Amino acid sequence: MLDSRLGEFTLIDRIVSRLGESAAREILVPPGDDAAVWAVERGAVVATTDALVEGTHWRRDTMSMADVGWRAITVNVSDIAAMGATPRHALVALVLPPSLTLHDLDGFIDGMAEACRCHDLRVAGGDIVRGSETAFAVTVVGSAPLEDGDVRLLRRNAARSGQAVAVSGTPGASAAGLALIEANAGGAAADALLAAHRRPVARVALGRAAVEAGIGCAIDVSDGLLQDLSHIARRSAAGIEIELAALPLHRAAVELLGERRARDLALGGGEDFELALVGAAGALAGLSTAALTVTAIGRVVSEHAGEAWAITPAGERYEPPSAGWDQLRTGDRA
Amino acid sequence: MLDSRLGEFTLIDRIVSRLGESAAREILVPPGDDAAVWAVERGAVVATTDALVEGTHWRRDTMSMADVGWRAITVNVSDIAAMGATPRHALVALVLPPSLTLHDLDGFIDGMAEACRCHDLRVAGGDIVRGSETAFAVTVVGSAPLEDGDVRLLRRNAARSGQAVAVSGTPGASAAGLALIEANAGGAAADALLAAHRRPVARVALGRAAVEAGIGCAIDVSDGLLQDLSHIARRSAAGIEIELAALPLHRAAVELLGERRARDLALGGGEDFELALVGAAGALAGLSTAALTVTAIGRVVSEHAGEAWAITPAGERYEPPSAGWDQLRTGDRA
Repeated sequence: MLDSRLGEFTLIDRIVSRLGESAAREILVPPGDDAAVWAVERGAVVATTDALVEGTHWRRDTMSMADVGWRAITVNVSDIAAMGATPRHALVALVLPPSLTLHDLDGFIDGMAEACRCHDLRVAGGDIVRGSETAFAVTVVGSAPLEDGDVRLLRRNAARSGQAVAVSGTPGASAAGLALIEANAGGAAADALLAAHRRPVARVALGRAAVEAGIGCAIDVSDGLLQDLSHIARRSAAGIEIELAALPLHRAAVELLGERRARDLALGGGEDFELALVGAAGALAGLSTAALTVTAIGRVVSEHAGEAWAITPAGERYEPPSAGWDQLRTGDRA
Repeated sequence: MLDSRLGEFTLIDRIVSRLGESAAREILVPPGDDAAVWAVERGAVVATTDALVEGTHWRRDTMSMADVGWRAITVNVSDIAAMGATPRHALVALVLPPSLTLHDLDGFIDGMAEACRCHDLRVAGGDIVRGSETAFAVTVVGSAPLEDGDVRLLRRNAARSGQAVAVSGTPGASAAGLALIEANAGGAAADALLAAHRRPVARVALGRAAVEAGIGCAIDVSDGLLQDLSHIARRSAAGIEIELAALPLHRAAVELLGERRARDLALGGGEDFELALVGAAGALAGLSTAALTVTAIGRVVSEHAGEAWAITPAGERYEPPSAGWDQLRTGDRA
């Protein structure tokens, strides 16, 4: 048990040491002072915070503490990626119950360090407090350069009627992975989906490339593709229509869960951390790389402003069984 | 109850609206996108995060939700003040249990908005999630200017043998206030101490003035004066000695609790958010203003490196009953 063996300050030293190269040791003021300090050039600071709570955002039976640590970093990096910015530093507030073991905490730190290495950012500071449930609030601070005196970013409010809508990767893969974990499924096909759920990768390079290509609108798929696109629709006062037949489904999800379920998970399952992008069709088409496909899935329309609709091949609106993930409404989802 | 009436996104809109002028509406990307974005000049970003958990950091019977909101901002601003930097923006992660009422949440937001106005910063973004206990993790991001190509800050590791030690205000006032709240005390004398506990003010102007005066070392008094000074002693590899007789006690604390208790609370009680400063005696003496006294209380010595000692008029070391506040060791303190 944590509290009977280690004080707060011993624990902080232990965590900084365990983070290894993922602790920001080279900045102006590294972890260990009242605040972290780093140098910046003239430009833009891009900052986001997300909290994860055991029982709400993960369960012990579907995710290791290292997976949780990975996720705590990645959900925040994904928000920075969705702005077209570059993540630089993380601050981590840990709420630890007396029942949490040092082994649990070490696992969390290791997963966080791995996600920092994968996404090229470092932990600059944090806080450790006692609570009755395990929770983590991570803040990631990034940067975006000034170009000709202007900061170019990916905004939610920048979709315009006539533009195309695209998505990276295969949305629904994470939700399919969770479904398979809950069904105790294994094997080579399932493993890719399990990894999509447990070790999602935020699309930082894609976000930057989109800005460079002149794209001005994006969101990360964290709550479900249709719901996340509805945020763009609402903020842009435009409608969005995506073609069911165009959705890039994960082959293993179709194979193991069937096409209909895979498609519903692509529309409503969250936590993929893919980017949904809106802009000129030609610019979007140029964003695919050997490692990551960007697929055109729909368009911005002047009808049903504020709403994102899925459209069947017959031209009908399709409403999936789950409309997306709301932190406060659906507390029983992991 | 929150969850049965409002979704996450409705709640975010409500909070931003209620924050009024304390929401950062004028930045490059205000609340409502994937991340907040603001412009910065070449210089230093100064960032800190602190979490508050009900039961660990406050109790319903000693503090209103507005006081908690005030505190969530102020504890973080105080860390920025202790670096000699200027707070600019806050990010707020809220963990809300189903039992929390909208009235509670509104109170919290109002207190947060008041603290933002008092300390001249704005809320740029946040996150709302469900949990089983109420907790808040706030990140404050500030700035420090480049002067002659260098960033001047107040560090914990900059105390040097022979320098003087000073403290602002009357440490122990907050702890005395809590003791009086628990004893159900009232009256004019008590009210000043109750306010010190419920509405502490971070010393941003003092921190900046200290930097301007050439001071290079400080910490905010959050865990208890003696313990906080021991952090400076440890990071500076020096000893610190403070004179019991020099401690600036709050007159009401002496009057209501007696001199001995008031002194022990000044040494061991935390949450005053005063600044303890280390530097040249002359420079420290010049920091007092009409509104805030800075009192010389001791010196940096080459003995007992890593430790801060309190010294009696007879020249003996004095160890107060409580050595300070450790988040993980002492869970039963509010």
